[in-house]
Amino acid sequence: MAFKIGLLGLGTVGTGTVQILRDPVQRHPLVNDLEIYRVGVRSPAKARAVDLPAHLITTDLDAIVTDPAVDIVVEVIGGLEPARSLILKAIAHGKHVVTANKAAIARYGAEIFTAAEQAGVYVLLEAAVGGGIPVIEPLKQSLCANRLHTVTGIINGTTNYILTRMQNEGGDFADILADAQRLGYAEADPTADVDGLDAADKIAILASLAFGGRIKLSEVHCEGIRQVSAADIAYADKLGFVIKLLAVAKRDARSLLDESAQLQVRVHPTLVPKSHPLASVNDVNNAILIEGDPIGQVMFFGPGAGAGPTASAVVADILNIAAILKVERGSAARSDGTPLLDPLLACSHQDYYAIAPIAALVTRFYARFLTGDFPGVIGKLGTCFGNHDVSLESIVQTGLRDGLAEIVVVTHHVREGNFRTALDEIRAMESVSQIASTLRVL
Amino acid sequence: MAFKIGLLGLGTVGTGTVQILRDPVQRHPLVNDLEIYRVGVRSPAKARAVDLPAHLITTDLDAIVTDPAVDIVVEVIGGLEPARSLILKAIAHGKHVVTANKAAIARYGAEIFTAAEQAGVYVLLEAAVGGGIPVIEPLKQSLCANRLHTVTGIINGTTNYILTRMQNEGGDFADILADAQRLGYAEADPTADVDGLDAADKIAILASLAFGGRIKLSEVHCEGIRQVSAADIAYADKLGFVIKLLAVAKRDARSLLDESAQLQVRVHPTLVPKSHPLASVNDVNNAILIEGDPIGQVMFFGPGAGAGPTASAVVADILNIAAILKVERGSAARSDGTPLLDPLLACSHQDYYAIAPIAALVTRFYARFLTGDFPGVIGKLGTCFGNHDVSLESIVQTGLRDGLAEIVVVTHHVREGNFRTALDEIRAMESVSQIASTLRVL
Repeated sequence: MAFKIGLLGLGTVGTGTVQILRDPVQRHPLVNDLEIYRVGVRSPAKARAVDLPAHLITTDLDAIVTDPAVDIVVEVIGGLEPARSLILKAIAHGKHVVTANKAAIARYGAEIFTAAEQAGVYVLLEAAVGGGIPVIEPLKQSLCANRLHTVTGIINGTTNYILTRMQNEGGDFADILADAQRLGYAEADPTADVDGLDAADKIAILASLAFGGRIKLSEVHCEGIRQVSAADIAYADKLGFVIKLLAVAKRDARSLLDESAQLQVRVHPTLVPKSHPLASVNDVNNAILIEGDPIGQVMFFGPGAGAGPTASAVVADILNIAAILKVERGSAARSDGTPLLDPLLACSHQDYYAIAPIAALVTRFYARFLTGDFPGVIGKLGTCFGNHDVSLESIVQTGLRDGLAEIVVVTHHVREGNFRTALDEIRAMESVSQIASTLRVL
Repeated sequence: MAFKIGLLGLGTVGTGTVQILRDPVQRHPLVNDLEIYRVGVRSPAKARAVDLPAHLITTDLDAIVTDPAVDIVVEVIGGLEPARSLILKAIAHGKHVVTANKAAIARYGAEIFTAAEQAGVYVLLEAAVGGGIPVIEPLKQSLCANRLHTVTGIINGTTNYILTRMQNEGGDFADILADAQRLGYAEADPTADVDGLDAADKIAILASLAFGGRIKLSEVHCEGIRQVSAADIAYADKLGFVIKLLAVAKRDARSLLDESAQLQVRVHPTLVPKSHPLASVNDVNNAILIEGDPIGQVMFFGPGAGAGPTASAVVADILNIAAILKVERGSAARSDGTPLLDPLLACSHQDYYAIAPIAALVTRFYARFLTGDFPGVIGKLGTCFGNHDVSLESIVQTGLRDGLAEIVVVTHHVREGNFRTALDEIRAMESVSQIASTLRVL
């Protein structure tokens, strides 16, 4: 059973999506059931990183979303229009939709989800927030038993990159923005990122999911990072804080059982205590901290953007829809009458993996020896390791312990079997009293 | 439509599960469809933190797993037997199963999942690894498009607590273990934790899911933390590392496309570079770092144990099964003929949330002022804030900038509206040249 994908857009994320779908080895077997059926682009003549058969490509995006053969429409053109209209038309034609479009969902989510509910189709949007970091689906599924009260995120990679560099280099906003633009970390028109608008779109989506209600984007309080100065970062540092652009959605814990309680949904630069889990989220990384009862705190951390990570989220959504369609269509499909299981939730793999023996491991080691305090012991250890192809990064006599010399060795990447053979030889040396410890190094 | 739960065990996790199910307000609406139908315990007379009607309680666990009315069996008794037999019997009677039992799944997973596949039922186990941290479901669903190559976890809270204290206090293993036992962070027989056996169970489960094959637990290389000494932690620190008990599952990236490639699955104390995301995971927290193509790295962080977090994972699994059952049973259920959607994946909430105005926010502030260098300016600022109920934590003249005095203020938690009113008044003061910045403090 193949599921036919109509892909709208073949930019960065669209290309990443095609690359995953055409290279299914060692991904979930369900990827084999997905067929790239049509790809809608604006300029078919443009050179692409993926080489698709010409008959798949069309400039008629309307024809894709209305094609009776298409099961799932994947919208990765971005922007408000024609994305919104295409999504709505796809829904009206009974297609399930996967989108990475935070701007369209944050503005037209109500219209889109109402239409989807009426048509009985899914609109999934994992890629809209946090790039490849699983956060939408965990909010919907893994955390669904919780009464959530706070979502706090670093959900804009560009501003986090700029703030991290301001923190590390002591530079001012304007200079580092200019450099970030030169390096491709910030767009020529950086408004959506640096003024917090992108983060506002995303926190509106997260708040809606976390608290199960709709959010008017115009009511989200939004401040960007233009006014953050090197002086403030330096003073914050002295006070024990780093400055991060946080997006916060909060239901007042005191009134948690009061359904009429108001939400806070806001984006602004914030002094974050250095010991806070979000304080060490640097560069273009994103992280989302979710708090509630009874979970306490959980945090999701990873790459907030990029073709590969975002495409990972897009294809995960496609696979989730395909899995459900498989269950629905197969309701009585198995010959022996047992129900067909959701292939993502079931554990159906039968084969055993061969596990490599630990001797075959290639890793770095730390080892500590207690030896007689004779000249030449370090040389003997070094020679023995060398004889067994164990290359050393350092070997240092760190001091004396109980009248014995203490020697600490750190290896380069070596084969564990070789290291152990060398240790056996060292253990037999008269001058070595004890191999006090051996530990692997990550 | 109610889904009937047969709960096996009313210990810590069982009690947490009942507490969630009986308090559905502001959780997912689907919680209302779950009914605690039978609860199997060993000692019905025992005092419990939850007050259940007597007719729900039974000591006949066999009767629960064979009861035709039960939809979902939740196994939270732990241990190998009778857990294994009860799970298998529940499966044979067509029940879906939710379990938190890492020991039984790591040993009998092959038998259990084969039986489940044949019976067409789900066996979900989010609570078996990482307590409340969503990791099983993200591996199965959100990351299913990836070709994963490495899973690295801190997945035993007890050993991480001991190692964190050894790191912070410089103490030796035996002393801190004894104290951890006194405080309830380690069990009287600490073997399963400190010898790495618990982590081995969990990494076997994660490896199986990440790489889609079965793992023989006996082949998992396992070393505990008994041999980690204060001296090693001190040397590691000097070399730029912390020592963590890591559980690692790795498919060799160089042979990623070679299906016959061997896996590494191992648990051992490891020197972790201080800059690594896992290095700052301290105390009883767990974290799981997952790497693959094209996602790069994602990390899940949170409470690895505890009644509430673990019950959060148990109830999420129950809700996931209920959601699928709802779709299956309702295939043609809606009166207008449109398909019923999975209530967890769909976005069906219709109501708008009221968003609080930013002036109502209660938060801490940081503010920086440039003023004339006159005596009494700090007093004027302090008085003005005080007049508007803005309580200050500190107010410091930090130096001179461009011939002006620079004053940094940090407030306690104050109402933003009051703070802004005070700022308006300060802005009008002759002695104040500029409010150079105002930032909120997390």
